[in-house]
This record gives sequence, C-alpha cells and structure tokens, in this order.
Amino acid sequence: MEILARNSRVFCPFLGKTSPSTLKAMSASSGLKTAARECPVMGPAMAARQYSSSTPPRAFHESAPAKANEASLESVHAKVGVYDTSKGICQHGLAVMKAAAQATTPEKVVAETCEKSPKFNYEEFYHNELTKKHNDKSYRYFNNINRLAREFPKAHTQSETERVTVWCSNDYLGMSKNKHVLKTMHETLDKYGAGAGGTRNIAGHNQAALSLEASLADLHAKEAALVFSSCYVANDATLSTLGSKLPNCVILSDQLNHASMIQGIRHSNARKIVFKHNDLTDLENKLKSLPLDVPKIIAFESVYSMCGSIAPIEQICDLADKYGAITFLDEVHAVGMYGPNGAGVAEHLDFDAHAQGRPDNTVMSRVDIITGTLGKAYGAVGGYIAGSAFFVDMIRSLAPGFIFTTSLPPAIMAGARTAIEYQKETISDRVAQQTNTRYVKSRLAEIGIPVVPNPSHIVPVLVGDAETAKIASDMLLERFDIYVQAINYPTVPVGEERLRITPTPGHGPELADYLVESLETVWNELKCKRVADWEEVGGLAGVGVKDAKPVKPIWTDAQLGFVPVGPTSVTKEAGNLIEESEKVATAIEASA
Amino acid sequence: MEILARNSRVFCPFLGKTSPSTLKAMSASSGLKTAARECPVMGPAMAARQYSSSTPPRAFHESAPAKANEASLESVHAKVGVYDTSKGICQHGLAVMKAAAQATTPEKVVAETCEKSPKFNYEEFYHNELTKKHNDKSYRYFNNINRLAREFPKAHTQSETERVTVWCSNDYLGMSKNKHVLKTMHETLDKYGAGAGGTRNIAGHNQAALSLEASLADLHAKEAALVFSSCYVANDATLSTLGSKLPNCVILSDQLNHASMIQGIRHSNARKIVFKHNDLTDLENKLKSLPLDVPKIIAFESVYSMCGSIAPIEQICDLADKYGAITFLDEVHAVGMYGPNGAGVAEHLDFDAHAQGRPDNTVMSRVDIITGTLGKAYGAVGGYIAGSAFFVDMIRSLAPGFIFTTSLPPAIMAGARTAIEYQKETISDRVAQQTNTRYVKSRLAEIGIPVVPNPSHIVPVLVGDAETAKIASDMLLERFDIYVQAINYPTVPVGEERLRITPTPGHGPELADYLVESLETVWNELKCKRVADWEEVGGLAGVGVKDAKPVKPIWTDAQLGFVPVGPTSVTKEAGNLIEESEKVATAIEASA
Repeated sequence: MEILARNSRVFCPFLGKTSPSTLKAMSASSGLKTAARECPVMGPAMAARQYSSSTPPRAFHESAPAKANEASLESVHAKVGVYDTSKGICQHGLAVMKAAAQATTPEKVVAETCEKSPKFNYEEFYHNELTKKHNDKSYRYFNNINRLAREFPKAHTQSETERVTVWCSNDYLGMSKNKHVLKTMHETLDKYGAGAGGTRNIAGHNQAALSLEASLADLHAKEAALVFSSCYVANDATLSTLGSKLPNCVILSDQLNHASMIQGIRHSNARKIVFKHNDLTDLENKLKSLPLDVPKIIAFESVYSMCGSIAPIEQICDLADKYGAITFLDEVHAVGMYGPNGAGVAEHLDFDAHAQGRPDNTVMSRVDIITGTLGKAYGAVGGYIAGSAFFVDMIRSLAPGFIFTTSLPPAIMAGARTAIEYQKETISDRVAQQTNTRYVKSRLAEIGIPVVPNPSHIVPVLVGDAETAKIASDMLLERFDIYVQAINYPTVPVGEERLRITPTPGHGPELADYLVESLETVWNELKCKRVADWEEVGGLAGVGVKDAKPVKPIWTDAQLGFVPVGPTSVTKEAGNLIEESEKVATAIEASA
Repeated sequence: MEILARNSRVFCPFLGKTSPSTLKAMSASSGLKTAARECPVMGPAMAARQYSSSTPPRAFHESAPAKANEASLESVHAKVGVYDTSKGICQHGLAVMKAAAQATTPEKVVAETCEKSPKFNYEEFYHNELTKKHNDKSYRYFNNINRLAREFPKAHTQSETERVTVWCSNDYLGMSKNKHVLKTMHETLDKYGAGAGGTRNIAGHNQAALSLEASLADLHAKEAALVFSSCYVANDATLSTLGSKLPNCVILSDQLNHASMIQGIRHSNARKIVFKHNDLTDLENKLKSLPLDVPKIIAFESVYSMCGSIAPIEQICDLADKYGAITFLDEVHAVGMYGPNGAGVAEHLDFDAHAQGRPDNTVMSRVDIITGTLGKAYGAVGGYIAGSAFFVDMIRSLAPGFIFTTSLPPAIMAGARTAIEYQKETISDRVAQQTNTRYVKSRLAEIGIPVVPNPSHIVPVLVGDAETAKIASDMLLERFDIYVQAINYPTVPVGEERLRITPTPGHGPELADYLVESLETVWNELKCKRVADWEEVGGLAGVGVKDAKPVKPIWTDAQLGFVPVGPTSVTKEAGNLIEESEKVATAIEASA
C-alpha cells in the first residue's frame, strides 16, 4: 500500500494535496483503495506508467494515428471510454493500476517471487499470456458504448453527454428499444420480479419459459424448442451432448463455424471433420468416406457473421439425406432477419409458401436442428434449439449446460417472446434493414471502398491489417462520432482484419451518407486499400477477385417491394415501410 | 396427420364437434397443428394415451399417491402446472402429443424407419435415451411456478388465481422483488433498452458492466472481476481455460463439486484428482504426491448446495500455500448470504474484521479465485469471477465462453449491482434468513423429520427414495399449496433423494409452522423414515449417525444478535431486523 500511496502523490492532483499522515491512515484502512477506485485520473495515469516500459497499449499509442493529430490523446481516451471519467470506475484500468501499485513493473514482481520459491509462479504465467496477446496485436480494449433506447441508433460513451452513432451492433432490427418489447418487460418485472430464482427443474420453470418455447417451436415449425442462457451455451451443450451420446458419431463442421460450435464439437470428443466453407463437393467427398450407418451431424450456419456468406442449406439437406446425416443449422445471425415470419434463411428459401401459411416439405422442415439467439435481431439475451420432440426432450434431460443453470429472468423471456411474435407479424423492419444495407453497400461500391461481397445484411469492410483496422475504428469514433468495432484475429484470419458494419432500420440514407463520407476521409488519410488495390494483388476474401460473378442479395427486389433507382427512392421506400411497421405495431398493441 | 385428426376427435371436445372435412382441411394445411398447440386438453390427454402402454409418467401416476385419493389426477395435473390450462401451451406435453400423432407408439415409428433404411435411426436413439431416464426414475417433469413479486414468497401455478408458497427457490433473500433492484431495472430498461446488442468486444461493453465488475471486485476485495452469462459458464470457461493453459496443470476437485466445475475440468483436459468431500487429510495426501513446481488448482465450493456443508476454506488455503497450489472457490450459494458485506463464507470467517473495514491478511484475501452468481441471493441472473488483475485479464482475453457471447442486458447488470450494494449496506436480510432457517431446522428436529445436518442456510430433508420424494413433493403442492421440489439423481446420489428447503427472510414462523405441520402429515401418510428410523439402519448422509457431534451454525448467536428461546422471540427479532433493513434501504435511496 505504501508504494500505491507514493505513486498516487505523483499522479493524482487530489492526493498530491493530501497530507502524508492522512494518506498513511487511508492506506492502512484500505480507504485509499476505495478512493483510487473512484478516481478518474489514477487509472489511466498509472496504466500508462506501467505499460510505458514494456508493450505500449494500443488504446494509448495506436488509437491516435499520426495523421489525426488534431485529436489529443486525452480526448481519444475520453471518447473511447476505455477509462470512465464520469464515475471514475474502470475495471481494467483499475486492474492495471493495482498491479502497478504492487511493484514498479510486473517483471519485478515475478523476479522477486521466483527468487523465493520453487513453486509455480501463477502471476508470471498470466502476465506472459497477456504479453503474447499484446505482441500479436490481439489484445482487446473494450469500448464503453451505452446504447440509448430513446435515441436509437445513438449511444453515449463514458460521458453521458457525448453521442456516437452505433454502426456495429447485432441489435439488427432495433428490437431492444421496441416499445412493445419494453412494455412487456416492464409489466413482467413488476409482476414476477427480477430473476427466475432457480433452474428449470427447481422453481425456475414458468409460464414465460413455456410460452417462449411454444413461440419458438411455432416460428421454426418444429415440434419443440428449448431455451438456454445464450446460443453459445445452446450450441456447446447440444453438440457436446449429441456428439458424445450418439455412438461413434462423426461431426462434419464448416470451416468458418462459430466458436460455440467448435467448442461443442471439441467437448463431445466425437470425431470431427472440417469441410471447406460452403463447399458442397468437399462436404460430399467427406460424407462419402463414412459408412452409411454411422451417425453423422453436419454442423453449419445460415449467415456467417464476419463475412456475411450464406450456406447452401437445401443442398446440404440433400447430402444429409443421401448419406444418412442430420443437419444442425445455426441461424443466430438470421432469425428475425429472413423469411416472412423472421424464422431465418431456411424459411426465406420458401418465402412465398411460408408467407401464405405453414407448408409441408420446406427447406426449414428438412433441417433437423435449428439453433438461434434471442440476443441479436430479437434484442434481448439467450439462445435456443428447435427440433423434434424426442431430440429436444433428450437435450433437456441430459445436457448439463441446460440442467444446472439458473433460468433466464421471466422479463427477458417474455420480452423476447414479444419480439418474436412482433416480427412474425411485421415484415417491414426486415425490409427496411435490407433496404438500408443495400444502400450502404452500393454507396461504398461507388467509391471503391472494399466490402466483402455477400448476399446478406452484413457489410464487412476489408482493411487487411490489425493496426490499421484499430486506427480506422478509433478515427471514426473520435473524429466522426461513429462507432464501428475493428474485427481482428482470432475472430477473423490474420490479414483479413475488417470493420464490420451492420445497418438497422434506423440507419437511413442520411446517417449512411455521413458514414460513407467519413469512411472516405479515413480511407484517404490512412491510405487504406481500395477495391482496385486489392485487384492488383490478386484479391482477398472475395474483394478484387477478377471476373467474379456478382453476388445477388437473398432478399430479392420483389420481396423488398422496390427496384432501387437511387438514394431518394430508397429513402422514400424505407420511410414508407417503417411507417407501415408502426401501424401494424399499433394494431397489435390495440388487439392485445 | 390423419392419426392426429382421429385421436383428436376422441379426446377433444372442440374437434369432436368439427366436421371430418374441416378436420381434413385443417390437417392438410397444418392448421390442426396450430390448433393443437393452443388446446388445453390435447396435450395431457394424448400424453396419457401415449404413455399408458409403456412407462407411466410420474406426473400422472406417481404424483397422486394411493393415500392421497381425495385429490383427483386431473386436479394434481392442473395444480402442478405441467400442462398449462390457461393458455393451452405446454411445450413438453406438446412434444409428446406430436410424437403420438405421428404413430400409435414411438416403437412403431422406430420399427417402420428401421425396416426402410440402413442409415442410423436418430429418433429411435433419442427415444431410447429418454426411456433410460424413465426407467431409472431420473426423467424430470418441470413444475410451472410463477413467483409473484408483490406476494413473495407466493407463486401462481399454471392458473393465475391459484397460490402456492415457494419453499425451494434460490432467490434466498427475495432480492428479485426488492424495490430498489426493480427501480434500477425499470430505469435502465427505459434508458438503455432490453439487450446489450453485442459481445463485450463489439458494442456490448458499457457502464453497467464496468460498474458491476467494480462492485464485485470491491465486494471480494480483489483486484478485478469479470461477468459471464451465468456462473455455470464462469466456472466452465475459467477452469477449462486455466487448466488447458497452465503447463501440466493438475486440478484437485472436491468430490461434491458442482456440474459446472466438473465440466470445466473435463473441458480443460488437465489431469484431475478428486479428493473426498471436505477431507483435508485426503487432499493433503494428494497434494503431497505432486511435484512442488507443477501448477495445481484446488477447486471447491464454500456452501455445497444439496447438503449444506461448508468447506474448511482457511485450512485449504494453508495446504495450497504449503504445496504451491492456487485456490478456486465457488461461493455461488454463499454470496449475499454470509459475511458482513455479503461476500460469502470466506468473508464470514473474519466477520468482525470485515465489519470494521477492509482488513489485510484475511481468509478471503488468501483465496486466489472466487466465483459467484448474480442469480441466487442477488435475485437476477449471471455469474462472475474475481481475482488478481492479471488472472482476470487473461480469462477475459482467452476464454471463448466469455469472448463469443452476447453481454447480459444493461438492466440485469445494473439491477444486480443494486442488489450487491444493497446487501453490502444491509445485514438484516441475511440475519432474518438465518433466523428463519434455524427456526425451521429446530421445529423439524422436534418432530424427528430428518434434516441432513449442516451449518448453512440449506434445509435438506432426507427421503431416501426417488419415487417417495416425488410423491411427497406432489402432495405438498396439491394438498398444502407448498412447493418444494424433490431432488433426485443425478443431482444427489441414488438413495439420498431429498426435499431441499430454502427459507428466505419472507418465510417467517407462521409459514414455517404450516410447512412443518404439512410435512408431518406427509411423513405420516407416506410412512417416511424419521431420524430414529435412520438411526436403526446405521444412518445416512449424516442423519441418524450415532454419537455425531452437533453441527454449529456458521452464523453465531452473537452475529445474529439473539439467543433463541422460542418461536415468539425469534419472530420478534426477525421482525425488528426486517424493519431495520427497510430503514437502511430508504436511507440509501434518499442519498442516491
């Protein structure tokens, strides 16, 4: 504590004026720790000091590019919100500060401890692991982004008065601020309280869970559904349970599958065969090599979130039928977003039939297991599986990740159900979202800013370098009040770093034009590669690939109800649709 | 679908009056499925039919004991709420009904499919797994329990007008209905919306997360804390990451550790050594056998939730120091419940020192890693870890279960933080809870109803047989409007089945007296074993063990501020404490 007290006097204007005896007393009573925790200056100052002798943290050195010198370091930090100056609470800054308080450098701690004992040095180990992350540029600094329900898609940073436009949230339809959802949640909170109070088996099973699962089963036209804490848990628990229970099971996994599926497969200890992304020939060759009677799971996604590609679901179902496999389809980035009822891409493939009723023999009915989330287009949190009655009941009965965990709060489940039912009735949010996505993609194409071509709602802007992607993201935030997170390894491969943009129905042409202009400035200042530059180096991630076939959006012009002729008509169309959506919403509310 | 139509006419008063041609049309358009999903009668009727030829489901046959014949089967089902008759939605009933609709028996489905194809029969496999669960009596029927915030600790069942008293929730302090928590949640909902909208790295990091983690770090007097979707995920992610990263790591795991820790250890692929429950000699022998420089984690819990035992935390820390291990302590059932600030048992062990400030060199400061939940005593949902800055930052940077999942909603995080801060300031809820626990335990001891002896807030009433435990639970619900879930294998060992009772500050002597009288009736009618009966067979799970030392509660008389002399004084004491608690709460609110 004395080192902390000494250091504090150097860095802290408040403590600098405090008498040594007071400091000593505070230090002895641990009051100093509390004061430090509340202090807006200590964290950044000591963190900087701590890091200055080793790896510089990117939030300090890389976030302010040489060319953007009109933004001071301090204002970058304040805006980014890595350090909270309003309430003075910064967890990771605090952590670093405390470590610094314990010794001048972590190396010193480590060395001192090493000399004393032959025991394993855990702190040294943790520190080394973090150093690796710093060295390979994959260490992550979180941005403090507080999305405001009444000013969607704006957020405040650590300062309550600052505003940024969020262009990278997975709240794709803005359902987190939907008034019907919020009304349901307020009512449920008042009636049933904050939490469920137990696991599903012990006091945590209720009408909210039953109704939500009935809605989900209906959405996907499956016999049953089951809700989990998250879709990470749903995927992990389901694949690990299935893969470990099915005798000699083989899991065929798309190369770009999400971490939750990779973990689930790993945890199953089943044999895993990775097939090339969306490659039917490769998948068939691998299926062919396995005996017909061996249980096989083809695990894949409908929309791959970091590149926006869409799986050939129907053809994968054909292969599954042919080779005796079942299909496990993650629709996490698609539920709420595709199909006339928002059931996902599988539903979208029989758009007209589903729009008219509940048809048999659809692509969706052929998929054995669908998993989805309540935390993206539905705006809440949680995940689920849907499938046959026996399948769902088996997972319910066997998966530890379901059995041994507290249920989601009733208000969350009821709110998510309202979002699902709302999106079943209201197609206009999906149309507006796709309309806005098309607009952003077409504007970026006009000026040669490289978007990884895809048929979905994701706008992955290729940067191709971790440092530049981070600098671009920081510039957008600092200079243009636009928040787009840089996506680096391990979420995308090294060299394919990108800015992942996700328009919502609230991101109309006015905001989009400003985004495009801002990106143009950033691209010029940072000399980022344009499509033509990528062409010269032979293309990357589908960008700048010569003679590539143009990718058609999965939402057709007819489904969107317009032919895009320019910004004005798109605006009007989107405006009309949003208005229509509000009308439907009001009608639903009135009938409730 | 035709079988479904035919069956429907037999069971369903609505469809019985519908013309065959309408039925056929509905069947063809799948409208019948939708209708069935909305039907209050179909589910139970067809489920009964489906099960009647094979394993009888316990919700139908075992829940109505022969001696309790004044309760009709139907009323048992209605009360239990396995089938929802208010809105007609019953997920698991529906699942069974649909399976029944597809064929007369599942065996027939299976046989038909088998004949046709050499491919693996997945549905048969699922069905067989479920049959195993039915056969070993571990198949679970969930009770529909809707805990009412304004009538705590009452809930309604599937019928909104029926009331039962919930005696088995893990909302130990009733914080899910705490007005300060609800106020925070309502305000946060209005301001920041329903969901976080992204992972912590992408748009889902915000002030609510930062503040909550600061509160948690402060609670446990650790450098840092990190929030997860649940403590299941926190334990799984942390142990699997630590165990896989630390070179040649060995994890020493208490025999009774929770499933989440067992999974985390399994997923780490580290060497695992199980030590006997709370057995220091066995633990030391195992530690002794390992080289000093090998990294070792001692993973254990403070309060073991199914038997209520408490770990010798300080002595385990001594062993960890001696043999170069780190301690991983799960305080899930203890946070909010023990210690002057509610930090758990580790804090409770230095009660006076912690009550007076933030002392150094405490048992809590010696524990390396503490994990806890926001979903039990704090009344919300979610879990966390707390520990050194480098440790927490490493898990933050490496654990897929943290990185690749949507953040908890801001309202949940803010509500949980309010609960934590409230419990830091307000000891009276804990005192009232312990007072009520002592009262229930002493009343049951008076009449020889066997409680597994333990020093904590858990009241595990030993039944010793899965079927009887389920019948006892159903009788309590049906005849006495008391909900106590039966706990069967795999949550407890076969033969140690129990009713797990968890009093809260709201379960005062009046409710407790009624519970005890009800248990007395059930014990008489079902001829359940009393303490004396267990003594005769040599004792089980600590019950009826001759010459056993009496177990002292960990909350001392002095800490509770009373010497128990009988129900009246206890009541008064608890009443005063609750009143005091409300005063403090009001003061906090006024100062906010």
